[in-house]
Amino acid sequence: MVSPDCLFCRIAAGELPSSQVHADDQVIAFRDIAPKAPVHVLVIPRRHIPSAADLAVDDGPLLSRMVAVAAEVARHEGIADSGYRIVTNVGADAGQSVAHLHLHVLGGRRMTWPPG
Amino acid sequence: MVSPDCLFCRIAAGELPSSQVHADDQVIAFRDIAPKAPVHVLVIPRRHIPSAADLAVDDGPLLSRMVAVAAEVARHEGIADSGYRIVTNVGADAGQSVAHLHLHVLGGRRMTWPPG
Repeated sequence: MVSPDCLFCRIAAGELPSSQVHADDQVIAFRDIAPKAPVHVLVIPRRHIPSAADLAVDDGPLLSRMVAVAAEVARHEGIADSGYRIVTNVGADAGQSVAHLHLHVLGGRRMTWPPG
Repeated sequence: MVSPDCLFCRIAAGELPSSQVHADDQVIAFRDIAPKAPVHVLVIPRRHIPSAADLAVDDGPLLSRMVAVAAEVARHEGIADSGYRIVTNVGADAGQSVAHLHLHVLGGRRMTWPPG
């Protein structure tokens, strides 16, 4: 379930510090250490899933919970009405830097297009 | 279920043309008309859901299906190994242009950071 060499598993386990904004039994959310917007939070499952490409069909409830947490964080951070972008990277071309599924939630400024 | 004034509902219903790459009973995928990468596909639910903020807890299976279709499209387009970015915009600051939930799937080039 938990991969000892994974940075985000260790954050989820409380072994490494993070600026946490949400925690429940399945999902945690914390501020990106290199924020690219006034609000930039990462939403991750506690369970080690390498990327969105590795989600199983029956991970629907977990994914739904992650998106609900993103929306909850947006409300709490005051960007639910102004809007926010949710991004997840799969693999090298996307720039995925940690091989543990994470949703970037960015807002508090006007996001530009293309998205990178 | 279907909103007659919604561009993406009309595409899903086949009333407007699109360059479709996937269709099933719940989800369709088609090429973005203004692509920002060699591969730029939109994955949408047939059902009218305004944005990711409007997903209900029991929409997990649908969301899981959408992400599975994104992965399937990536495989079919030959970018599953090189990588891809999945983006969804909620509201004005994110630049959401059509008020029907859609996942952008972008790849075939090195994506940059920040994501817009």
